[in-house]
Order: sequence, then structure tokens, then C-alpha cells
Amino acid sequence: MESNDNIGLSCPMPLSDYPNVLLAHGGGGKLMHQLIEKIFAPAFASPELEVDHDGATLPFAGRRLVFTTDSYVVHPLFFPGGNIGTLAVNGTVNDLAMCGAEPLYLSAGFIVEEGFATESLWQIAQSMKKTADEAGVRIVTGDTKVVDRGKGHGLFINTAGVGAINHNLLINPKQICREDVIILNGDVGRHGIAIMAVREGLEFETTIESDCAPLAKTVMKLIGAGMEIHCMRDLTRGGLATSLVEIAETSGLHIGIEERSIPVRDQVRGACEILGFDPIYVANEGRFVAIVPEKDAARSLDIMRSDWPDACIIGKVTDKHRRLVTMKSIIGAERIVDMLSGEQLPRIC
Amino acid sequence: MESNDNIGLSCPMPLSDYPNVLLAHGGGGKLMHQLIEKIFAPAFASPELEVDHDGATLPFAGRRLVFTTDSYVVHPLFFPGGNIGTLAVNGTVNDLAMCGAEPLYLSAGFIVEEGFATESLWQIAQSMKKTADEAGVRIVTGDTKVVDRGKGHGLFINTAGVGAINHNLLINPKQICREDVIILNGDVGRHGIAIMAVREGLEFETTIESDCAPLAKTVMKLIGAGMEIHCMRDLTRGGLATSLVEIAETSGLHIGIEERSIPVRDQVRGACEILGFDPIYVANEGRFVAIVPEKDAARSLDIMRSDWPDACIIGKVTDKHRRLVTMKSIIGAERIVDMLSGEQLPRIC
Repeated sequence: MESNDNIGLSCPMPLSDYPNVLLAHGGGGKLMHQLIEKIFAPAFASPELEVDHDGATLPFAGRRLVFTTDSYVVHPLFFPGGNIGTLAVNGTVNDLAMCGAEPLYLSAGFIVEEGFATESLWQIAQSMKKTADEAGVRIVTGDTKVVDRGKGHGLFINTAGVGAINHNLLINPKQICREDVIILNGDVGRHGIAIMAVREGLEFETTIESDCAPLAKTVMKLIGAGMEIHCMRDLTRGGLATSLVEIAETSGLHIGIEERSIPVRDQVRGACEILGFDPIYVANEGRFVAIVPEKDAARSLDIMRSDWPDACIIGKVTDKHRRLVTMKSIIGAERIVDMLSGEQLPRIC
Repeated sequence: MESNDNIGLSCPMPLSDYPNVLLAHGGGGKLMHQLIEKIFAPAFASPELEVDHDGATLPFAGRRLVFTTDSYVVHPLFFPGGNIGTLAVNGTVNDLAMCGAEPLYLSAGFIVEEGFATESLWQIAQSMKKTADEAGVRIVTGDTKVVDRGKGHGLFINTAGVGAINHNLLINPKQICREDVIILNGDVGRHGIAIMAVREGLEFETTIESDCAPLAKTVMKLIGAGMEIHCMRDLTRGGLATSLVEIAETSGLHIGIEERSIPVRDQVRGACEILGFDPIYVANEGRFVAIVPEKDAARSLDIMRSDWPDACIIGKVTDKHRRLVTMKSIIGAERIVDMLSGEQLPRIC
């Protein structure tokens, strides 16, 4: 269909299993990692391309700048607890925060399908402004494209973010050490289940709301208090499980977590049972883990609880295994936690 | 269809003429300006949101940083002279350059339709790398989302860019003065016509190739030589005409151009006549105007010609009228040049 003859090369990598992109290639799990490893990493390889982190840390004017981007294709566009605009702001702000950066500036690129309601566009722009104000970041540049009817899905938004690192910590998966403690800021699985409930018309006694929220202020408090954070990660596509597996694989260490310590709301647990999902694989938009040395664990937990009352310690780093996450179940059995395989919930962010 | 009740507001602006977004709202012309003015500018208003410029100039670590973004939805994805990937790199590099910034870092966000050929994705990633290398910029962070079949159009790409200003010039429409000279770097209309020819199956004796090219090196040469550039603008959506109208409106001054001095290749002129287009409204991807004081005009032209042999002076700034562009036609008549109204060529960038 497309003429590729403007590049005199053919694709050398063993993607013969997947001549076409599947929905699962965007799901945050194994196939997405393959796509990145086989297509994007070889093309864009550079010391700064941190495929295993939420953003790139770069020199600018003698200081450290963090740069990150995400596109948002969630459907439906409006859901309990937010909309595509709140997601697009919080998601990118949170990626900056996870790198230890103070979020400063956002860009916003809108891809609108012909026929989309201008009033909805206005509503979404208004909530982006409100969310940006809350997160202390400014939307400073933008772009709008309109695609033919039937060639989009209402609205897609891309945000990119620029932040500044104002401390001397190195925060990335390679910094974690044996005995480090893993702190989670609240219950998991709500964002994915909120989207799924709307999409599938599931009804619960009370509406399940997305946990979509900015995380930067909590992170700045932790850093400001001198907590020696080794790594942070927000638990979006692929959920808590996939994030921890990525960190374990990059660090070469073992992460052991306890199922009983991971908060999951009853309604979310119930919905997961009905739908056949495991809450630790369901996407969140306001949840993160901070991995800190044992000496800073109690204080870090206190600081996190001042913003997130349900924050808790869910496990620790060991060298018992290499590049592995294990979870002790409620009945005491230990099992290996794998990365999300295939696509659990498409287009939730 | 969508529930808007998570924001307790309704759209106050007079968009009653357009309850739904039209293709023309993305065309770079009057309707797009209305959309920006009524929806995005009020929501995101900040001193840095330069709706009348190609990027935002911002403080970072005591220096000036430029931040810009664009989404690319061109169709077909591969065309003579480039593909969506070369466009996505050059377009954002050029926006940085137009603000006088040295391009440093790019982000790349891919929105892939389920079923898209992985080989095409690989080809596009490879040409992005090649184009970035040529432009002296690095792709440092990225994101991939996959949307359901029928909810996208093969591939959309967003790039955002970060650049550094390493001089003391202020380069924006408000800096232009009476007697300033307008220099154009080459023939206009090729990108839009190249896309249109593929799309409509038009055949010419020789293939019309897009002019897609990076402009930053030329800009850095001009600045390095001490040229006092007042304003630059790359001539993308809406073409030469719309760019000059935007500059005239923001500056409050008059721009007078001469039709005979604007290079248009014969094939492009012929195609425009057949299709009913005016070449000065057709999009380019490697063309820009530099507006410089008369004292620097000859030297600037020489420098531009070292990279672009067809560069030429096409007009000048006066105060004869306010906020207006006029063009003296080949037969000597003077007419007002308006902004593109409606949509001439959809989805060419």
C-alpha cells in the first residue's frame, strides 16, 4: 500500500511473528517492550534514550533538564474522576516527577477528528488548565490537527513536559540496592476499572472513580526532606506488576512484595474478579512506588501519608534472585510476578 | 454522547456557527485561528503561550530555552521526497530554528493503528534517525500508543522539541520595523503539491518532490554572522501568504511583496492551475522567510544562498497600511493578501 522506496533498506529484525502492529503492542507489556527494543531503540539509540525510565535526563545550561512525552488515546474521553485532558496533564507531570524533576512546562498537541463537538474540546481545554494549575505547571505551546471523519477517534492528545532537577540525587532503576524498601502511595487498579466500567456499562453501588492525580508535590516533599530516593515509578500501563518487573530487570536485583499489603478497594477487587483481571496489572494514573533505603523508609512513609493516607510499605529489594519480582500471596505461597503479557485493557490512557 | 458533567461549566464562546470541528479548523487558516483564540488561548493564557509564534521562549537555569510541539497526520505516509517521519523531525527542528534556537532534543510520540505494518514503522523510525542526524538533533524520549483498527489512520506522530538560544537577539513578529527586507529561501508550493499529486494520482513528466528539509543550520549561520534577524517563519500550513499575514497582524505593520520575485517551479504552477490553488497558500516544509533590517539584507541573502541557491528578496515592511499584506501582481496590480480561508489541502503535514 505504502511505497517504502525512499529508504533503500528492509526491516532486518525478527518481527516476522508480527508483520502488523497489534493492540497489545501498545499495552505496556511484553509486546510493547519488544516493539521498543526492535524498532525504536536501534533507531534512536543514544545515552539519553532511557527506554527503561519515564523520561530523559539531559544537560542544559549546566543543569539537569528532564524531557518526557506521552500520547493519550483513552476511550471514553470523559470518565468518572477525569477526562482525557486531566490524564494528559497529570500523566506527563507524573513522568517528570518520577525522574525527580520539578515540572515546569508542558506542550499540548491535539489531534481532533472532523465532527468532534467544539464544546467538548472547550471542556477538555478547561480541565487541562485546572489540572495544570493544581500541578503547578504551565502549558506554554501547542498544536491542533484535524483528521478526516473515521480516521481518528474523537480526540487524541499528546503532551510533552520539561522539568528541572534541583538536587543531587540520581533517581533511576539502576540506583536501587539490597534492603531498599518499596512504598506505594495508595490503592491500585481504580483508573483501569473506572474506564472499563464505563466502557462495558458495568454498574456498581457507588461509581468507581479514576485515581488520576498529580504526584509532583509529594515527590518534591520527599526530596525536600532529604529522603535518599533511589527510584520512583508511576504505575500506568501494565500496573504495579509491570513497573516492578521493569525495575527488577534494569537493576538486576530481586523485588519481593506481599499481596496482603497492597491496598485494593473492595469494589475494584470485585470488578477484577468478574472481569478476570489481576489488580496488580491494572493501570493507575495517580499511583507510584518510591524505593528508598531502609534508613529513610519510616520518614518517607510519613511524608507520603501526609498526602496519601493509604500509603504503605509493600515489599523490599533483595539479592535472593536476579532480575525477578516475587509476590507472597495472602495464603503464604510465593509466586513469580511476570510482566503483563498481551493486552489486558486497551486504550485506558 | 460524551458526559461532560465532570466540569460544571458550559462553553461560553460564540462557536454556535461551528458546533462541530471541521477539517478546515486544522488547515492553518482563519478557522484554525478562531479555534485557538476561542478555546485554547483562554484556557492556557500565559505570557509564554505564543500563539503567534512557532514556539515558546522560556527561562531555564538563567538561560533562554525554546519549547515547541507539532503533531503530524500527513497522508499518504510516504511521499516523494520524504515520509511522515522526516516531516515530524524537520517540522519541529524548523520551529525551534524559527525562534532563533539551536535545536537540541526531540521527543517522539507514535499513535499507531492496529494492523499497521511493523516494517513501515521500522522504515519511518530509520528515516527519523537519519533526518535527526542531519539536523544535528537527538531523539531522546518517546512513547507508543496503539488504537483500534478504524480509529486511526495508519500512523500519527507527535514531536516536541527543546532548543537553546545562544545569542541576544529577540526574534518574533513584534520586532519587525519599517524598511525591513523579506528574504525567502527558495521556490514555494512543492510539499503540498507533492502530497496532492500522490493522493490524487496526478502524473507529471518528472515527479514533484516535497521540499522537506531542516533549516536550523542556515539560521545558525545567519545568527553566527551577526545578522540582526527581526523575525523568521517557516511556511507550513497556509503557505507563504498565511505566514506573512500572521506576521503583519501581530506586528501591526504592512508587508508588501512582489509576485514576480516569488519562485514557483513550472510543474508546481501548472499543477496549481489545474487544481485551482494559489501557490502562495500551499504548504512547504523546508521554506522560510527571514525579515532583516535593510543594512543586513545583502549579506543575509548571500549567506542564505550558500545553502539555498534560489533564495531571494520578495518584499519589504512598510507603514503604508496597518496589519496588512499586499502583493503586486505580475501585471502590476496590487491586491490584498488574506489569510487562507477554509481548507485548501487537508492533512499535508
